[in-house]
Amino acid sequence: MSTKLNILIFSIALVLVSCKRPETLEKQYNLDQQSHPSLILTKQGVKDIKSNLGSIPIFDKTLVASQNEVDAEIEKGFDVPIPKDYSGGYTHETHKKNYVLMQKAGALYQILEDEKYAKFVKDMLFEYAKLYPTLPVHPKPRSYARGKLFWQCLNDSNWLVYTSQAYDCIYDFLSEEERNTLETDLFRPFADHISIDNPQFFNRVHNHATWGNVAVGMIALVMDDDKLLDRALNGVVDENFNPNEKDNDGGYIRKDSQEIGFFANVNEPFSPDGYFTEGPYYQRYASYPFLIFAQALQNKKPKLKVFEYKEGVLLKSVNALLNLSDTDGEFFLLNDAQKGMSYFNTSLIATVDIGYHFGGNNPELLSIAKKQDEVTLDDAGLAVALGIKEGKERPFVKKSIELSDGANGNEGAVGILRSGGLELVFKYTAHGLSHGHYDKLSFALFEDGNEVVQDYGMARFVNIEQKGGGNYLKENTTWAKQSIAHNTLVQNETSHFEGKYDTGSKYHSNSYVFSVEEENLQVASAKEENAYPGTQLHRTMVIIKDEDDASPYVLDILRVLSNNTNQYDLPFYFLGQIMQTSFEYSKFSRPEILGKSDGYQHLYKETSAYAKEGNIKLNWLLNNKFYTYTTVTDMNDEVIIGRIGANDPNFNLRNEQTLIIRKKNVKNAIYASIIESHGTYSPVSELAVNAYSQIKNIAVIHNSNEYTAIQINTKNNKSEVFIISNENNAKESGHKLTIDNKEYTWRGSYILTDYK
Amino acid sequence: MSTKLNILIFSIALVLVSCKRPETLEKQYNLDQQSHPSLILTKQGVKDIKSNLGSIPIFDKTLVASQNEVDAEIEKGFDVPIPKDYSGGYTHETHKKNYVLMQKAGALYQILEDEKYAKFVKDMLFEYAKLYPTLPVHPKPRSYARGKLFWQCLNDSNWLVYTSQAYDCIYDFLSEEERNTLETDLFRPFADHISIDNPQFFNRVHNHATWGNVAVGMIALVMDDDKLLDRALNGVVDENFNPNEKDNDGGYIRKDSQEIGFFANVNEPFSPDGYFTEGPYYQRYASYPFLIFAQALQNKKPKLKVFEYKEGVLLKSVNALLNLSDTDGEFFLLNDAQKGMSYFNTSLIATVDIGYHFGGNNPELLSIAKKQDEVTLDDAGLAVALGIKEGKERPFVKKSIELSDGANGNEGAVGILRSGGLELVFKYTAHGLSHGHYDKLSFALFEDGNEVVQDYGMARFVNIEQKGGGNYLKENTTWAKQSIAHNTLVQNETSHFEGKYDTGSKYHSNSYVFSVEEENLQVASAKEENAYPGTQLHRTMVIIKDEDDASPYVLDILRVLSNNTNQYDLPFYFLGQIMQTSFEYSKFSRPEILGKSDGYQHLYKETSAYAKEGNIKLNWLLNNKFYTYTTVTDMNDEVIIGRIGANDPNFNLRNEQTLIIRKKNVKNAIYASIIESHGTYSPVSELAVNAYSQIKNIAVIHNSNEYTAIQINTKNNKSEVFIISNENNAKESGHKLTIDNKEYTWRGSYILTDYK
Repeated sequence: MSTKLNILIFSIALVLVSCKRPETLEKQYNLDQQSHPSLILTKQGVKDIKSNLGSIPIFDKTLVASQNEVDAEIEKGFDVPIPKDYSGGYTHETHKKNYVLMQKAGALYQILEDEKYAKFVKDMLFEYAKLYPTLPVHPKPRSYARGKLFWQCLNDSNWLVYTSQAYDCIYDFLSEEERNTLETDLFRPFADHISIDNPQFFNRVHNHATWGNVAVGMIALVMDDDKLLDRALNGVVDENFNPNEKDNDGGYIRKDSQEIGFFANVNEPFSPDGYFTEGPYYQRYASYPFLIFAQALQNKKPKLKVFEYKEGVLLKSVNALLNLSDTDGEFFLLNDAQKGMSYFNTSLIATVDIGYHFGGNNPELLSIAKKQDEVTLDDAGLAVALGIKEGKERPFVKKSIELSDGANGNEGAVGILRSGGLELVFKYTAHGLSHGHYDKLSFALFEDGNEVVQDYGMARFVNIEQKGGGNYLKENTTWAKQSIAHNTLVQNETSHFEGKYDTGSKYHSNSYVFSVEEENLQVASAKEENAYPGTQLHRTMVIIKDEDDASPYVLDILRVLSNNTNQYDLPFYFLGQIMQTSFEYSKFSRPEILGKSDGYQHLYKETSAYAKEGNIKLNWLLNNKFYTYTTVTDMNDEVIIGRIGANDPNFNLRNEQTLIIRKKNVKNAIYASIIESHGTYSPVSELAVNAYSQIKNIAVIHNSNEYTAIQINTKNNKSEVFIISNENNAKESGHKLTIDNKEYTWRGSYILTDYK
Repeated sequence: MSTKLNILIFSIALVLVSCKRPETLEKQYNLDQQSHPSLILTKQGVKDIKSNLGSIPIFDKTLVASQNEVDAEIEKGFDVPIPKDYSGGYTHETHKKNYVLMQKAGALYQILEDEKYAKFVKDMLFEYAKLYPTLPVHPKPRSYARGKLFWQCLNDSNWLVYTSQAYDCIYDFLSEEERNTLETDLFRPFADHISIDNPQFFNRVHNHATWGNVAVGMIALVMDDDKLLDRALNGVVDENFNPNEKDNDGGYIRKDSQEIGFFANVNEPFSPDGYFTEGPYYQRYASYPFLIFAQALQNKKPKLKVFEYKEGVLLKSVNALLNLSDTDGEFFLLNDAQKGMSYFNTSLIATVDIGYHFGGNNPELLSIAKKQDEVTLDDAGLAVALGIKEGKERPFVKKSIELSDGANGNEGAVGILRSGGLELVFKYTAHGLSHGHYDKLSFALFEDGNEVVQDYGMARFVNIEQKGGGNYLKENTTWAKQSIAHNTLVQNETSHFEGKYDTGSKYHSNSYVFSVEEENLQVASAKEENAYPGTQLHRTMVIIKDEDDASPYVLDILRVLSNNTNQYDLPFYFLGQIMQTSFEYSKFSRPEILGKSDGYQHLYKETSAYAKEGNIKLNWLLNNKFYTYTTVTDMNDEVIIGRIGANDPNFNLRNEQTLIIRKKNVKNAIYASIIESHGTYSPVSELAVNAYSQIKNIAVIHNSNEYTAIQINTKNNKSEVFIISNENNAKESGHKLTIDNKEYTWRGSYILTDYK
């Protein structure tokens, strides 16, 4: 800590001592009129926490950890530097650290009654109050809404959401005069900058605006300023609003007629199932402000009944988000998403604790909290700690689930099929705002918490300054968002909706069948009719488990019907090393580049090959497991083994492989494939077990407008047929189909039965 | 199990019942004269095990696991198929499974006294006795020494080593007639095939011959046949011996004058420190026959004092091998080696247990046994189980260590430097027989059990049939063994010794300094004068830890002196993704191929760049850790970013990257580099901590025949200089060197001191 700062702190300390008397009076007054803390921690909560301390292990442990962290920082001294850097840089990371520390110190002050924590918050706040009025907008120009402490208003909002909680905790510790200084020099102009000064940021339906609304709302609640709270809930007047304006990610600021403010942000992006249209990575990010503010509103404005809003969607969102994670708690990669983000993220700790405390004490949430091994230092965290202490937790069982998308739940969905260690994520949603990818009907497959058939995720190294300041890289647009970067069909080397956000945002896919009651035969089927005008896509993904002791496998049927003659590419992003292919290929001595645009310019073509009539197989090894992809091909199908990484001048991309089945000059097409996880390898015992596919072959034995039938022959001479009705998805309808003079009859939209 | 086999087993069972009486008499006789079991399990051992059962957790657990495994197989029935496949195939894996099961069943019979286990072994042995006489050599032609049950005599020998133990355990359960049948139809011809019929296999100094010798020796001990034992210990007469013959790996069968037999195999490949010249991967493989046979000899022929042979080298080898593993117990990759092999391999369980039981009960071995969580079901395993039960274990602390190579310990060494989480493996050994790689003075770096700067290992997927029958792939020769595949200097795009085994086998590098007493400054330095005639290589690797709370980093100094003008390439096989480079490069739109032979044909050249005067830096991310490589360059240095995978028609290689510093048209050269692990990233908190190098720059400030001095400037303005004496490695010699008019004086071959 600089000498200057030390002197300052010493001076403040002197003032503090001399102010003690009037402050006590002030406290008395507040207690009666407008109690503090009351935002996240409450007076009653603090009392309950104190009476339980020492006997609530997970809470006690979190408390000690926070105490150690904050004590060490108090010891070291803090810095409030003049803003300068993008994320990853010193000033950015320091301001970020500061708000986290203030929030924790505030809670510590309340719980431990040690004034050193209040003093720490106070000292830091006064440094900010001194700095803030001197600040122009942040010097880094990249954002469509530049903050003052940070390069974007988004991070300024983060700061205020956390700092409001700290302020609430030390409110009574401050004199009225001190509060006036802070509010006048810091909090009010801060709130104004992220709202009035930046309506293009504040008046949106977007995770950015959510943070902005909540930041303003939180400080309004602490200051008991209903007018400011109204701004948070309903947005600001914006006379210069331009409906064509876009943000840095290419997303629209907002539609002309759109509702704005906090409730609009709850209403629009969440489906009735609690799915957040941007995907789980951003839901995780937005989850904290949504729930922390809901908690604050519930505490201070219970009449608003925020947790009942839209039939309790905020509480439902907690469950939806947890279901969008794999076995290890890592979120599925839908739209822009960085790999490795999981429910161990801090914002999920608050999400789970608030979900438990305000959502009817679901004991399954306690098992997640136990894994997180940390709780929030507030009333919600106490409730969780008590629940765990009392042994109430139950396993959080993730089942197969379909989560609808769209404010009204009618804009497609995400279908998740789970069986054994397999988790299949099938995406047939709306676009997902500015973070959406052009990947209608794409899928990803996980086993035991590891990606097997991957979604690339985003091209960004969040907060790693070396890589484009930690921000989105240009390859996110040119590669990661493009259709060919996903496990879905690409027509004529052009992305869905021609990669145009305006067009993509108008449409969504539709769920056709989602049926998971029978564990050994789970079906998700969806249609997309707008990605390519004049072309209809219908994909059906099935998890089949033939016998109780057999491994489940995935059947994937993709039907394409078009008015025009096209080229179709279906990429398959397997992770791992190729062990064997059933088809012959010749590897180029030097890779070629697959195409010119729409992401194709980032793919190397490594081999040239044509498929045979029948099936081709790709057998590969990943994490000491053997997998095989078996797919129906005909003689004209080109088979391409590709690798990511062309036109990547800064090595921003990961150089993983893909297999592409290309059908040229066809109108209609059908892809039918099986993905198996069938064996294991141990580098310790050097034993390979079941290294080969158990599928002898698959065949399309019927494909009409009405029905598609796939025959599956296994190596133990079992022959089955899966039939789906293509135009009638009614659960109770009867069907009859004759194939090879054999008649199949069934009820419902699909059947799996012995081949006759 | 086939009906035929069932009938057979039933018949044998009948015979068994009818034979009961004479067998009992036989037992009585044997007990007095030649007791069984006496090979691995002993009569006394069995007694002790029985009296401790139920109170020795690790033993009890292993016993139950074995019992479950064998019971399940007895239930299923066994198969003794006609040999047909390479490794990975059904017949290969079945015969392999069979010998493991027989060995376990034998021990279970002794310990549990349940005759079903003896019967299982007996039935299987009689199936083999029926099959064996009908067998020609194995149909697969690839081996220089074809077996009968397996494609190579090596695997036949594995079978006999295990089966001998089973036979010893059920010896007394059989009638003399039964034993005669087994010995006449199976064991003797089996031993003859792998010895007399295949002297090119049996009469070697090589892990193959070790298995062969031990197989014959083990069955000789069971049969109490001293003549056969002599064959195992001293080899067979081989009149047609051709000293120019080579094996499948290109290794010589043996030198003309070489000693043969078991003791020769102990004597030659083990250095006095217990380092096995082929490297730890093959030491692990050979370790089992060496130690299991030593145990058997100790039990049956104690007068041979096998454990005292060559000053106890077999016991020393246990310690050496464990020291050649990383934090997770995975072996360092020296010469041919598959990644992931570790001390959890079954053969290491026997190694550790025997090492403990016969090697003076070193309590540190108990901690390894505890991690293995399994013991051998014999006297040694009991000793370990009792040791653990009595709480005797101490942590096995792996320290920095130099392990000499060569039968007399004067053929170079492996130097391992350990500091914090870093483990640096520096190779300056002899060639390592037919499994050797052409990589004099190469190194690899591990952190926390993960490779950071990798050794490629071998190009082979052991027992994965899809990949070349699970055997060595041709890329092992064309890529993995070549110098450019390693982190060492390559002159004129030609491998060390021109990649010629005959030449490489004649020479070894020499240790120059190995000094690890001071934990914060550990030095390993070695010289190589034969890899390129007329060129001398001198590499010094140092781990420096500046302050107690600082992270250690690696300083790497490679001096090259030559009589001729050459091109020098120094590759650096970092694992992970490039975050940033300090030098500008232009990435080719399509990768080029780096060269034509000596492994260069397998490297893509991805970029073109020239270094600046001073330093270049490569900053990368691996396993959420940030690393930086800083190296001294001048304007003429070409910098190549390369990737493995060219001319790899079957995708047999892993496509990892390398950085190559190329110096053209120079006689002498010096490379000076620093490798740091300096920061961390969390994809959960998205925080990057210390993402940048702490090294401001390094410089070669002196380089003469006598001394080399490297200046290191850190970002916190510390300036140090490391000086090494190039021609005087005496520990106590005094040195004086003037640099920039400042005088440095010190004692010993090197110094690290403040820059004056």
